[in-house]
This record gives sequence, C-alpha cells and structure tokens, in this order.
Amino acid sequence: MAGEGTGSAVDTIARLEATIAARRDASPDESYVAGLRAAGLPAMAQKVGEEATESVIAALAGSKEDLTAESADLLFHLLVLLAERGIAFDAVLTELDRREGLSGLAEKASRKE
Amino acid sequence: MAGEGTGSAVDTIARLEATIAARRDASPDESYVAGLRAAGLPAMAQKVGEEATESVIAALAGSKEDLTAESADLLFHLLVLLAERGIAFDAVLTELDRREGLSGLAEKASRKE
Amino acid sequence: MAGEGTGSAVDTIARLEATIAARRDASPDESYVAGLRAAGLPAMAQKVGEEATESVIAALAGSKEDLTAESADLLFHLLVLLAERGIAFDAVLTELDRREGLSGLAEKASRKE
Amino acid sequence: MAGEGTGSAVDTIARLEATIAARRDASPDESYVAGLRAAGLPAMAQKVGEEATESVIAALAGSKEDLTAESADLLFHLLVLLAERGIAFDAVLTELDRREGLSGLAEKASRKE
Repeated sequence: MAGEGTGSAVDTIARLEATIAARRDASPDESYVAGLRAAGLPAMAQKVGEEATESVIAALAGSKEDLTAESADLLFHLLVLLAERGIAFDAVLTELDRREGLSGLAEKASRKE
Repeated sequence: MAGEGTGSAVDTIARLEATIAARRDASPDESYVAGLRAAGLPAMAQKVGEEATESVIAALAGSKEDLTAESADLLFHLLVLLAERGIAFDAVLTELDRREGLSGLAEKASRKE
Repeated sequence: MAGEGTGSAVDTIARLEATIAARRDASPDESYVAGLRAAGLPAMAQKVGEEATESVIAALAGSKEDLTAESADLLFHLLVLLAERGIAFDAVLTELDRREGLSGLAEKASRKE
Repeated sequence: MAGEGTGSAVDTIARLEATIAARRDASPDESYVAGLRAAGLPAMAQKVGEEATESVIAALAGSKEDLTAESADLLFHLLVLLAERGIAFDAVLTELDRREGLSGLAEKASRKE
C-alpha cells in the first residue's frame, strides 16, 4: 500500500489520492475535483489528453520547469480519472512491478542467449 | 528523495527510474529504453501522447484492468521522457506538494469567507 | 489553389472517402482500412490521437514536409473514423460553413459597437 | 456531396483558409485566430491536440452531432496551425493524392501476386 514510507514521495501521492477522494464529495462550486466529477468521465479523460499534449509540447519547446509543471498536471488528472473508475494508484504500481519482474527475467534470458 | 520508504509504492518508482537510467546506456538492439533514446526526444514525447490517448480510450471503453495497464504505460513513458530532459520524478512530486499546500491554504481562506 | 471548382482538392477528399468506403469491405489481410475496421472503433480513434500527437510534434520540431505528411495522416484517419460512425466529411464542412456564417455575423456586430 | 466541383465543400475550406489568413493580422482582442497567433505556435499545436482528444471522446461516447462538431474544431485548428507554418491545405491534399496513387499501385501489384 502506498503511504507506508517515511519519504515525501510516497506521502505525496497517497495524500493526493486522499485529497481527491475527499474533494469528490464537495460542492462543484468549491472544489475543482468536484467540478470535474460533476462534468463526468469524458471531461476527466479530456483533461488527461490535454495535459499529455501540454507535456509533449513542454518536452519539445519548454524549460525543465515547464515540463515538471505539466507532468504534475498530467499525474494529478490521471489520479482523478483513476479515482472515477475506482482504481487506486497502487494498482498501477503493482502492474509496473509485475512488468519490471518480467522485463528483468527477459533481460536475464537474453543475456544467456 | 523517492526511495526512502519501506513501502512498495515508492520503491517501484525509484526502481523504475534506476532501471531506465541504466538501460539508457544499453544497446538499442537489446533495450526498449535505449531504442527510444536512440530515436530521440520527439519519439519519447510521441509515446507519452500515444499512451495518454490509450488511457483516455480505456477510461471510456475499457475494463479497469485496461485502464490500469494503460496508466502504467503512460507513467513509464513519462518517466522515460523526464529522464531525457534530466528531471527526477521527485521534482514532479515536489511540485504536487507545493500545489497541495497552496490549495489547502486557498480552501482554508475560502472557508473563512 | 483549392476553390477553383474543377481542381483536385475537392476530388481528393471525395475520392478518399470513396476509397475508404470500398476498402472497409475488403479483407483485413489485404487492406489497411479493413484492418482498422476489424480492430474496431477504439483502434480507429487511437489512430486519430496518435496522428494528432505526430502533427503537434512535427509542428514544433519538424520540417514543413513533416507537418504536411502528418496532417495528411491525421486527415486520413479522421475520415476513417467518421466513416465508421456513418458521418460524411460534407457534414463537417457544413458545420464549418455554419460557424463561418455565425462568426461573420458576430464580427459585423462587433464592428458596429 | 463533395466532388461536384461547384459545391460548397471546396469553397468551405478555401474560404476558411482565406478567413484565417485575414484574421491573423487582426487585433488579438477582436479575433480568436489573432489571439492564437499572439499566443504562439505551441498554443496552436496545443489546440490541435485538445480537439483531437475531444474527437476521440466524441467518437466513443458522443452522438454523431458531437463527433461532427469536434471534427470541425479539429480541422479548423489544423488549418490555423498549417497557416502558422506557411503550409496551404492544398499541400496536404497533394500528399494524400500522391499516397492514393501509390496505394492504388500497391494494390494492383498485390492482386497480381
């Protein structure tokens, strides 16, 4: 489970997920997340697409600060989208862990060839 | 710094960043990451755009497993892109922390109004 | 120049739509369009997202030839997607005409202010 | 139906290109196109990415009217982007014609095999 670490990294994402979960039930007038929820799943997906394009543009034509900021926007809106579909970020990390394992095995195998 | 936690979440991202850093110097024939690096920054940005579209589609028309898998792809390729621009994922988390702080203050202020 | 009436521009899009309509019924092994149709609506939508990202990247980091080629890819895959939903490109042009009319009126009104 | 020669289809795109060319020199306060021009190439590219995502979402989750409207937005912003890079829409159509020729030849060749 994300959030067990003492470091700031894991705390950040776990805290963000908790904040998103709490704000989803707020009034759309008071909370950006509640506003997105009221707008519906397509609006949340649209934000992920928009922020991804912003990240692409920042990567090619922006500063490191621009790309960092756009990546933060992208990650935030991905968390909002995942929450709407009832998926914890931990499930994404578990999937990455699984692949890393497979990839390590594949690499080991290829080194033996 | 990501990686200080004992939980698997922070370990996953820190380990993934280390793997990406190591594979960037491998032969493009042996490593997917090295292949992307050889293809250049626009190719890495293109992958972020593609995986974001896949995530959008999975959110609207796929299963929870589909969206989890596409989100993992998106996060992985975002890490590859960030590495190319010399940005640690921690910088993205720091930016999210900073906003969370601002957002908490904004909310506090709005509650007083 | 598009607009001469007898020119190749209008012929190109009409011919392309006819080709796409014909190839949709071909064998997926023989035709790219039939392959996309067999893969389904999400696969066609995915191609539009991919080619849009390629166009964005070409606009920022590519030559005029690159952007021209990516725009051709984008338009082609948009036509494939529209065909799948049973929409003729003419409907898109009619919508553009309608807006141009509204926009002309809006501009006229703003000039009077 | 596009292709009648005298029809509105070719006129629409040619007229739209002329309108965009004229509005580029207007005041950003009065014209949306001038506003995009003032915002710069990345802002124009961003709009193409956004409208493509909207088209993807409309294709999967919207009505025919939604997809028609989003496709109109996408085409409009693609024309704005092409204009910024000094590319006429005719160049895109010429590229599509060239491929159609190649594709016809390829199909002919494959039928002989």
